[in-house]
Amino acid sequence: MATNYSVKFDIAQEAVEVPAGAMITAAAEKAGIEINQPCGGQGRCGQCAVQVQSGNVRRRSTMRLSAEDVEAGYAIACQTIIEGDLEIIVPPQEKIQQRLTTGQSAADVTVPDGYNHQKDQSVQRIPITLTLPSMEDQTSDWARLKTAIAKETGLTKLTIPLTILQKLPGVLREGEWKITPILFVDDENSGEVIDVLPGLIDPEVPLWGAAVDIGTTTVKVMLVDLISGEPKGQASEYNAQIARGEDVISRIIFAGKGDGDKTLRSLVLGTINELLERACKRGKSCPDRIYKTILAGNSTMIHLLLQIPPSSIRLAPYITVANHLPVLTARETGLETHSEGKVVCLPGVASYVGSDISAGVLSSGMADTEKITLFLDVGTNGEMVLGSKEWLVTCACSAGPAFEGAGVLHGMRATTGAIDEIWINAETKEASWRVIGGGKPKGLCGSALISLLAELLMTGVINKSGRFDFTLDSKRIRKGSHGGEYVVSWAEENEINEDIFLTEVDIDNLMRAKAAIFAGFSVLGDSVGVPLESVEQVLIGGGFGQYINVEKAVQIGLLPDMPWERFQFLGNTSLKGAYLALLDIKNQEEISEIANRMTYIELSADNRFFDAFTSAMFLPHTDMSLFPSVNIGGE
Amino acid sequence: MATNYSVKFDIAQEAVEVPAGAMITAAAEKAGIEINQPCGGQGRCGQCAVQVQSGNVRRRSTMRLSAEDVEAGYAIACQTIIEGDLEIIVPPQEKIQQRLTTGQSAADVTVPDGYNHQKDQSVQRIPITLTLPSMEDQTSDWARLKTAIAKETGLTKLTIPLTILQKLPGVLREGEWKITPILFVDDENSGEVIDVLPGLIDPEVPLWGAAVDIGTTTVKVMLVDLISGEPKGQASEYNAQIARGEDVISRIIFAGKGDGDKTLRSLVLGTINELLERACKRGKSCPDRIYKTILAGNSTMIHLLLQIPPSSIRLAPYITVANHLPVLTARETGLETHSEGKVVCLPGVASYVGSDISAGVLSSGMADTEKITLFLDVGTNGEMVLGSKEWLVTCACSAGPAFEGAGVLHGMRATTGAIDEIWINAETKEASWRVIGGGKPKGLCGSALISLLAELLMTGVINKSGRFDFTLDSKRIRKGSHGGEYVVSWAEENEINEDIFLTEVDIDNLMRAKAAIFAGFSVLGDSVGVPLESVEQVLIGGGFGQYINVEKAVQIGLLPDMPWERFQFLGNTSLKGAYLALLDIKNQEEISEIANRMTYIELSADNRFFDAFTSAMFLPHTDMSLFPSVNIGGE
Repeated sequence: MATNYSVKFDIAQEAVEVPAGAMITAAAEKAGIEINQPCGGQGRCGQCAVQVQSGNVRRRSTMRLSAEDVEAGYAIACQTIIEGDLEIIVPPQEKIQQRLTTGQSAADVTVPDGYNHQKDQSVQRIPITLTLPSMEDQTSDWARLKTAIAKETGLTKLTIPLTILQKLPGVLREGEWKITPILFVDDENSGEVIDVLPGLIDPEVPLWGAAVDIGTTTVKVMLVDLISGEPKGQASEYNAQIARGEDVISRIIFAGKGDGDKTLRSLVLGTINELLERACKRGKSCPDRIYKTILAGNSTMIHLLLQIPPSSIRLAPYITVANHLPVLTARETGLETHSEGKVVCLPGVASYVGSDISAGVLSSGMADTEKITLFLDVGTNGEMVLGSKEWLVTCACSAGPAFEGAGVLHGMRATTGAIDEIWINAETKEASWRVIGGGKPKGLCGSALISLLAELLMTGVINKSGRFDFTLDSKRIRKGSHGGEYVVSWAEENEINEDIFLTEVDIDNLMRAKAAIFAGFSVLGDSVGVPLESVEQVLIGGGFGQYINVEKAVQIGLLPDMPWERFQFLGNTSLKGAYLALLDIKNQEEISEIANRMTYIELSADNRFFDAFTSAMFLPHTDMSLFPSVNIGGE
Repeated sequence: MATNYSVKFDIAQEAVEVPAGAMITAAAEKAGIEINQPCGGQGRCGQCAVQVQSGNVRRRSTMRLSAEDVEAGYAIACQTIIEGDLEIIVPPQEKIQQRLTTGQSAADVTVPDGYNHQKDQSVQRIPITLTLPSMEDQTSDWARLKTAIAKETGLTKLTIPLTILQKLPGVLREGEWKITPILFVDDENSGEVIDVLPGLIDPEVPLWGAAVDIGTTTVKVMLVDLISGEPKGQASEYNAQIARGEDVISRIIFAGKGDGDKTLRSLVLGTINELLERACKRGKSCPDRIYKTILAGNSTMIHLLLQIPPSSIRLAPYITVANHLPVLTARETGLETHSEGKVVCLPGVASYVGSDISAGVLSSGMADTEKITLFLDVGTNGEMVLGSKEWLVTCACSAGPAFEGAGVLHGMRATTGAIDEIWINAETKEASWRVIGGGKPKGLCGSALISLLAELLMTGVINKSGRFDFTLDSKRIRKGSHGGEYVVSWAEENEINEDIFLTEVDIDNLMRAKAAIFAGFSVLGDSVGVPLESVEQVLIGGGFGQYINVEKAVQIGLLPDMPWERFQFLGNTSLKGAYLALLDIKNQEEISEIANRMTYIELSADNRFFDAFTSAMFLPHTDMSLFPSVNIGGE
């Protein structure tokens, strides 16, 4: 006995009747409403999201929806079963786009439980009322302050930089012998007075620190109140060095020519200082009140920031000048925080596994878990770590920036106008897509390339070797000067007024990149005798990871084929790690331990890597048994 | 039975016969030769020095003669007894002048016995051959160097400044993995790599350091080879700050106005850097190869050099901003030595007892002796220390710069054209004098003022109160706009074409200065219950001390009346102390201990000082029993 339910869409004149168990898309079709389904009803694009105002539904999939979305009634129309009478709002397309984008870029950083700035923080603010000097007590200003601080904190070995000593007498007298020194505590006995402020400062007033992630492509800054531990402002921007090279190798080369090193230093400093300004505006602070800055970044970025010659990173045997750097001052580094403020560059592991990874490993929690974990950070390069609390091995694949849009004819960075997801109709081989910002497309960003490659493969446009099937009847498939091509967008419908297409050469580049990454997984697993199927969780960090469509990444063999629930996207793990180190010196020490603990495998010296790379130069892989879930065109 | 000896002067036609036991001056008179005796044959001026070419003499006094002078046959004619046939050279007057001046300014600094740079020196040079990096050993440059240094030296906690890290990779490769780091050793575990040089440097090659004494009037620099410990070049010059004030008080006032502090800093830096250049030229080095500099100076000079506001030094309760300063770098201080070179400001005791005194106490040896010792450093100010290895008390008298020629109408600094010693004929009251450089006089320097005051007193021109006896028949004694005057040099015989004279106002100023110093001795002795006659030795440091005529200083009551052999002139004890601290960190620590150990007595808060000062406002003193040897005009 079939039950019928009534479904009323806000933009339809009347309700329609559909049988129980039908999808919302079926009801919409019956009501004569166009719901955008670029992925063809596979539940992957999220573009058909609607808002269920009343009534019961069962969501088969909530991919592309956040918990808040579900709470607010959102449902993917093509994946949602009608289980009662419904009232449904069909949101305007731009609203969906906006929601999806916003949801993706939010990094959720929360203050760790039990954070206690007096116990955990290396920057301390100690308001002190001094006894007045007199003819009977002619102690010098500095000795007077030192004694009082020692009494208050137990720190008996105190130093002070000259610039602060210079301001000390003025501040003491301005505050009428009430003073608030800012201390940088080295250990239980020793510390440094990095600033002195007149008067007694209320304990609740924020005390500022900053966490910075210096990516090859993007720099992110987080302003933090060290008293509450709360992030108070974030800002991110492209690394201005991009204008001098897209990847680390081209920057290293640029640094070696003439004043290239100075130029690159000043470019990235410009970016960081501008971001500090912006984050401070949001947080109602100003950069020169920031007393501690924690930096994470790949080894090349750290070398370039500090103007340490990076050339040995690029040349065999590929070594850095330093992985563990001394604690510096803002003055030395050129950061425009408080000039005596501390600047800590977190320690990296090797030339191609930098502190962004050691910080990422900390914030991912993999160094504390018993689960065998694969941690992956695909940015301009691809770094990965395999292990658990017992052991950690790491390597970096020279994947190149293909997944950031470089080395691909119509590739571009994930900025406004970039297509970021593509769907190909299995029947017609026609393409539909989503554009960042919602306007006309200009090119293809990394996630679009993964998506496109997967769609081309799954719809039989290309074969496992990445070669086109020219027998197919579609004007989108054609031969060009770079061999086979697939046209995503025609000149007349896009921003650049020329066809946007993917060539066989592009496909080769993408396959090399994904093969390098997958070969990295293989060698890591091999080196410790852990097969990939034993990996209990895959943690994906980095900006790129946030936008990856896991299913498609598995289809092309970029990610290992395992149940979706084992994948977790962690957002910017590097910045989170820097934030954790900023709050608690113990975290900073743990990152240092993690860096020391990681066994680095140099892939360029490893024959296994070459073999694994060759095997991975198919879509998804030579060994299809590694990808049981990938079922290409009914093979 | 009287023996006769034959004496032949080179400038006389024939030899003369004189009885055994006669003075050389008697023989000269008999030979009709004019030998200059401005002091009237008292053996004090040294101007009658002759050179004994052959024959036996007995020298009653060798004051004004160095050991080398005596070795070369020099003898003071008025103090030398003929004990055999003699051949005598009478040197031209300018030659004597020159010799005396040269002899006085030479500071005899010798390397301490048993100096061992590897054991004593905090700056170490460690040539190291590193293992080459390879694909099997991808250790970073810095970690590789650290490990090698730790193996060589046992220093496990090593840091490196950013600027040196920046040059490390280039130096390593230039030297083909042979490298010579320069270390600054903090303690047995920790140190800092303050420079890296390519290749293996021969252990004998000099390693440079500098000792600097910053006086209110004069700055002295000594360049030292830290390997051998030998001074290799010295240079001294007036402190360019003089143009902005003669004494510390006027400089403190100047520093407080507008950019006065910046101006004073840059002036003294200019002087020090110029002197470093000059000393390095002599020592065949250059300033940027100096890795450690030890500075001594009074507290105001140190504040001004470091641009630390000095105003609290001048205002009750007279405190410094800091007596013990952190170790700085050349970069921070503005010294043009190696930019990461260490700059150590030795610790002072109080506002008016600076590190020149604590360094002076070390180099005088008084802190190690059981003898009750009075240490005195009269420069622009008068500081003194009383004590022994058991205890030390110190004070400073605001003597003012009268003894440096300031506050006296015709006073001037001890430079070319200054009269530096004066003799008055007891009968005629006529003056004779010695001029620095030998030309026509321009004015009176400090030692001339002491000399003049004593001669005026001893010849009855002035009385114990410093008032003139106008009953005397001499045109040199007259009344002027400042009361009584004594004319030292007439306008027509000097460089300035006006009479050079001393007024009663000048005499008052000088009496106040000497009274302040003597009152200092009294209070120091009183405060520890040690009468001045118990003092077993008086050690006189400072540039001024080198030129003092002790007898005359006692006559006016500036120095206590005790046997001459208890007085010792030590030359520049401050510079010597800095030199000792430069060689051996243990000396540096001992200076710090000395500074802490000294009990400072603030005279401006001490009623005893006012009483003692009043009593000392006579020549030599109200209580003549304190000056038994001073016999004024047969009183």
